[in-house]
Amino acid sequence: MSMTLYLGTKNYSSWSLRPWLAARKAAIKFDEIIIDFDQPDTKSRILEVSPSGKVPVLIHKELKIWDSLAICEYFAEIEPQLWPEQSDLRAIARSVSAEMHSGFMAIRNEMGMNVKAKHRKVTLTNQAQEELLRIDQIWTGLRQQYHAQGNWLFGKFSIADAMFAPVVIRLKAYTVKTSPTMQAYVETFYNDSAFLEWINDAEQDTLIVPRLECGQV
Amino acid sequence: MSMTLYLGTKNYSSWSLRPWLAARKAAIKFDEIIIDFDQPDTKSRILEVSPSGKVPVLIHKELKIWDSLAICEYFAEIEPQLWPEQSDLRAIARSVSAEMHSGFMAIRNEMGMNVKAKHRKVTLTNQAQEELLRIDQIWTGLRQQYHAQGNWLFGKFSIADAMFAPVVIRLKAYTVKTSPTMQAYVETFYNDSAFLEWINDAEQDTLIVPRLECGQV
Repeated sequence: MSMTLYLGTKNYSSWSLRPWLAARKAAIKFDEIIIDFDQPDTKSRILEVSPSGKVPVLIHKELKIWDSLAICEYFAEIEPQLWPEQSDLRAIARSVSAEMHSGFMAIRNEMGMNVKAKHRKVTLTNQAQEELLRIDQIWTGLRQQYHAQGNWLFGKFSIADAMFAPVVIRLKAYTVKTSPTMQAYVETFYNDSAFLEWINDAEQDTLIVPRLECGQV
Repeated sequence: MSMTLYLGTKNYSSWSLRPWLAARKAAIKFDEIIIDFDQPDTKSRILEVSPSGKVPVLIHKELKIWDSLAICEYFAEIEPQLWPEQSDLRAIARSVSAEMHSGFMAIRNEMGMNVKAKHRKVTLTNQAQEELLRIDQIWTGLRQQYHAQGNWLFGKFSIADAMFAPVVIRLKAYTVKTSPTMQAYVETFYNDSAFLEWINDAEQDTLIVPRLECGQV
């Protein structure tokens, strides 16, 4: 297949985690190259491979695909089980994925993804709290409906889960109020070997990027 | 088919325009219902139909699909010509669509979509200017490559064009520096009867929403 996925620093790069996890869960083979954030050559290294100047980027022969969701859709064309099989469920899965893709700005800013952060205290704005409630509503609604088929949002793992994986890491890192459903969904990830591979890699990152650190220890 | 697309005020609702235009161009039939912005009942009317509390929403029998990109993908499952036929071009079309979907925040804030605004002057931040250059790069690159097949980004119309339609309206509304390619692409839209149907509807909107007005006359 000979695909290469260019990623940011695993401890911080929420966008990189999404297609990486989708590919791993679908057993799609790829090489990975990390471009660490905030290094003197970060910008030039990313621009060498990425038309948008951002990671992640997937390179497959001559083809460059950028943006996490577009890469996930490309993987789903290779392994269609990455979306739910039923057309209506696929539409809902794409709705929640797209909602994550374009929204939840306060959560992104106030509790940046940081695998190595443990028990960090954050004071969230109302906006961020409302966003967490909306995420709870999405997760709880879907898990109630599809739990007979498994522990992921639509029972079986799908791209929708990959899109929310960075939120799961945030909920592990920061001491914010979560519902039992949210906690159970977090545990689903922390019992998954593919996800844990990323977590283990990220735990070994030595790079600290001050602008991406949030909260009080 | 019996699908209903719920839209925001046509003069302002950039997200609504995208799936509306994709459906029109693919000759997919739908009813439309406008929920005007900033009215006393706007929030409750949107929440009645939209799980995310946002428009657009597509209702197809029991199914609710929210978010512009997810609705576009649903339309593409009905009419696959909404994405380029070649797998690699489809991946690039999804990349530029997703880049638009999650980015270009400065353009969104500083030159909000406003069909009725004419010759408005805006002073753009560096960020917005860089974003315009990136859009120029996307449009120019694609149009140079695929112009033999037509005037849209990939020759034939695709969802990628729908995603950029609100930017086209912004370039018509505000006096910002544009390249000849950008101007030619704007003209492609303003010669398209489906797009002009939206423009004509929006021109007849009487509602003015002060928080969405940008620039100086």
